[in-house]
Amino acid sequence: MKQPTFVLAPDSFKESMTAKEVCIAMEKGLRKVYPEANYVHVPMSDGGEGTVQSLVDASNGTLFTKEVMGPLGQPVEARFGILGDGFTGAIEMASASGIHLVTKETKNPLITTTYGTGQLISECLDRGMKQIIIGIGGSATNDGGTGMAEALGARFLDKNGDTLPRGGGNLDQLATIDVSGLDQRLNDVRIIVACDVTNPLCGEHGASHVFGPQKGATPEMVAQLDQSLAHYADVVKTQLNKDIRDVPGAGAAGGLGAGLLIFTQATLQKGIEIVIDYTKLKDKLQDADFVFTGEGGIDFQTKFGKTPFGVAQAAKLSGKKVIAIAGYIGEGIETLYEAGFDAIFGIVPGASELEKLLAEGPQNVERTCENVARVLKWTS
Amino acid sequence: MKQPTFVLAPDSFKESMTAKEVCIAMEKGLRKVYPEANYVHVPMSDGGEGTVQSLVDASNGTLFTKEVMGPLGQPVEARFGILGDGFTGAIEMASASGIHLVTKETKNPLITTTYGTGQLISECLDRGMKQIIIGIGGSATNDGGTGMAEALGARFLDKNGDTLPRGGGNLDQLATIDVSGLDQRLNDVRIIVACDVTNPLCGEHGASHVFGPQKGATPEMVAQLDQSLAHYADVVKTQLNKDIRDVPGAGAAGGLGAGLLIFTQATLQKGIEIVIDYTKLKDKLQDADFVFTGEGGIDFQTKFGKTPFGVAQAAKLSGKKVIAIAGYIGEGIETLYEAGFDAIFGIVPGASELEKLLAEGPQNVERTCENVARVLKWTS
Repeated sequence: MKQPTFVLAPDSFKESMTAKEVCIAMEKGLRKVYPEANYVHVPMSDGGEGTVQSLVDASNGTLFTKEVMGPLGQPVEARFGILGDGFTGAIEMASASGIHLVTKETKNPLITTTYGTGQLISECLDRGMKQIIIGIGGSATNDGGTGMAEALGARFLDKNGDTLPRGGGNLDQLATIDVSGLDQRLNDVRIIVACDVTNPLCGEHGASHVFGPQKGATPEMVAQLDQSLAHYADVVKTQLNKDIRDVPGAGAAGGLGAGLLIFTQATLQKGIEIVIDYTKLKDKLQDADFVFTGEGGIDFQTKFGKTPFGVAQAAKLSGKKVIAIAGYIGEGIETLYEAGFDAIFGIVPGASELEKLLAEGPQNVERTCENVARVLKWTS
Repeated sequence: MKQPTFVLAPDSFKESMTAKEVCIAMEKGLRKVYPEANYVHVPMSDGGEGTVQSLVDASNGTLFTKEVMGPLGQPVEARFGILGDGFTGAIEMASASGIHLVTKETKNPLITTTYGTGQLISECLDRGMKQIIIGIGGSATNDGGTGMAEALGARFLDKNGDTLPRGGGNLDQLATIDVSGLDQRLNDVRIIVACDVTNPLCGEHGASHVFGPQKGATPEMVAQLDQSLAHYADVVKTQLNKDIRDVPGAGAAGGLGAGLLIFTQATLQKGIEIVIDYTKLKDKLQDADFVFTGEGGIDFQTKFGKTPFGVAQAAKLSGKKVIAIAGYIGEGIETLYEAGFDAIFGIVPGASELEKLLAEGPQNVERTCENVARVLKWTS
C-alpha cells in the first residue's frame, strides 16, 4: 500500500506551542496510526507574532538576538532570523518596538520610537541580506517609522536644524528630512512588509485614531499625533516627492508602514501570502494526501487572513483534504467549511482552566490527531 | 449510492443531556453531512442513573411518578417506567431511597429504609408487570432490603413479636421474619437487578464496611451495621432456608441485593448487559455502518462496565466501526482502542467552566459529530 503524505502546516498555538512544536505533536499522534507515512513539517504564521520563528523553522534557518533600542529608549534583546536560503532576513517589529515592551504606566505613543526596528534592519544589511521580511504587528509606536529611518541614517530636523526628539509627538516640529546619510544599501534590498491592515496614515481611519488608544493615547494625544503625522506626510511629499498619506497600509504599526514605503524599497503584502511564499508551502502541498493545519483559536475571523485559512485555500487549489485543529473553537466555523476546511476538531479534553490547557497543548494535539487518523485510516 | 446507517447509542451526559437528547444532537450533526442516511437511536445506560429514562426512551415506553416513602420516612416523588412492551417495569432504587434524598446532616444508615423501593415494586405489580428491571446504585440505605420487603408484606419482628423500627441499625434485634403476608404476585414476576458490584453482604468487603461510610456511617456505626446484617443473614438462613450471605452482589445498595434475592425471584446481572438486552441493541447493530456512542466522561475506567465500553464490545462482535464522543477525556483512553473503540473525540470547544459546558452540551455534540462525519464522508 502506498503510504500517505501528511503536510503539517499549523500556526503557533499562542502561549502554548510554537508552530514547529505543533507540527511535532501532530506527527506524534498521526504516526501512531500511520507509522510509515511521510510527514512534511511546514510551521506557519500569518505575519503576526511567531512569524520569524516559523520562517526560520520552515526553512531551516537560524535565529539571532541583538540588543537594540526599545520603544522607550531602553535596551532590549530583539530576535531576528536568517532564512535557510542565506540571503533573506526576517524581523518582527514588535521584538524591538512592541507594545509588550512598555507597561500600562509607561506606554506613551508621543515618545515611543521604532529606532530599534531600524537597528534590526541595519543588522540584516550588515549580514548581507538581499531581502528582508518584516512583520509589523503589535507596535507600541506612532512615529511614522521615523525612528526606524533615523537608525538607518535619516535625520529629522526642526526649523533650527536641530534633531527632533524621537517619538510621533514631536513631528509637528519637523522642518527638514535629511536623507543624505541614509544607508545606501537599502537601494538594493527588497523589503517585504507583512501587513494585513489597509489603514491610511492619517484621518479617522488612520494610525493615530484607530490604533493610538490601545497604545495609551488619550483623545487629546490622538489629535496631536494625527496632526503630527499629517504634517510629516506633507513634508515628505514636498521634500522627498513621495505621497504615501493615503496608501493602504501606510497607517499600519503607527505609520511604520509609511516609513518603510518612504525610506526603503518596500512592498506591503498580506502576511499569510508572504509566509506561504517563503515556506514554499504550495510546492510542498503537491505531494500531500492530507493537510493538517490549526491555530490556538479558530472562528469566523479565521477567514480574515489567518494561517489556517490561507493553508486551506492553498490546499484546496490542489484539491487536498484539509483538517484543522484548534485549542478554541468559536462562533461561525460553519462558514469555513465552504472555504476549504474539510473538518475542524477541538483538542480540549474537558472543562479546564486555560493555564492547564496551555501547558498540556502538545498531548492534546497528539491525542486529537491520533483519533482523526484512526478515522482517516478507513479511507485508505 | 447506498445511504449509510448510523446507530446512535450513547449514555446520558450527566447534568447536561439525557441519552435521548445526546442521540438527537448526534443525528443533527451527522445529518448535515449525511442528510439521507438512516439514524437509529438507542439511548443507553449502564444500570446507573438514567437507566429508567434510557430504557423508556429506547423502547418507546412511558415514565410515571408515584409518591412513596423516602429513606427517612418522608414522602418523595419517585419515577419509574413501563417499557414499550407493556409488561416490563423499570425502577431505580435511588429514585425512592437514594443518597440524594438525604442531606449531609440527616444521612444516617442506621435508620434509612428501602421501603419506598418496595412500594415502587408493588406499583409495578399493580400495573401487571411480568418482569421488573431494578437499578440499585446510589442508595442511602443499609437495611438489607428489609424496608423493601416490608412494603411488599413481609414483617420483621423482635423477640416480643413487635415490628422492628425500620433501618439497618435495628436488625440486631431481629427474631422472626414473617413472610406469610408477602405479596404472592412476586412468585410470578421476574426481577432483574442491575448490579455491577460483587460485594458480599457482610464482612470487610460487605455492604456496611465498603459503602457505609459514604452513607454517613461512623466506624462504630459500620461495626453495628455489619453485625446487624450478619444477624439478619443468620435468621434468613435459619427461618427461610436461604443462604445469601456470600452471594456476590448481596452487599450492593446496603444489602438490597440480598433482600431482592431473599424475597423475590431475582437475578443479578451487569447493568450494561441488561440495557443491551432490553434496548435490543444487538439487533439494531446488525444494519449499522457506523456506531456512535459516548458518555459525559471517558477514561480508563470506561472499561469497567460503562456504557460506551459495552456498546463498543457489542459493535465489534458485528465488525462495526465505533466512534465515541465525550465531554471529558481522561487518562488511559489508549487502552480503549484495543477494546473496540475506533476513535474517541472530545466535544469541548475551549477553556471553559463546567457549568457553561453542561449548558452547551447539545451544540458541542452536534458540532463534533458533524466534523467526524465530514471525515467519514471520505470513506464512502
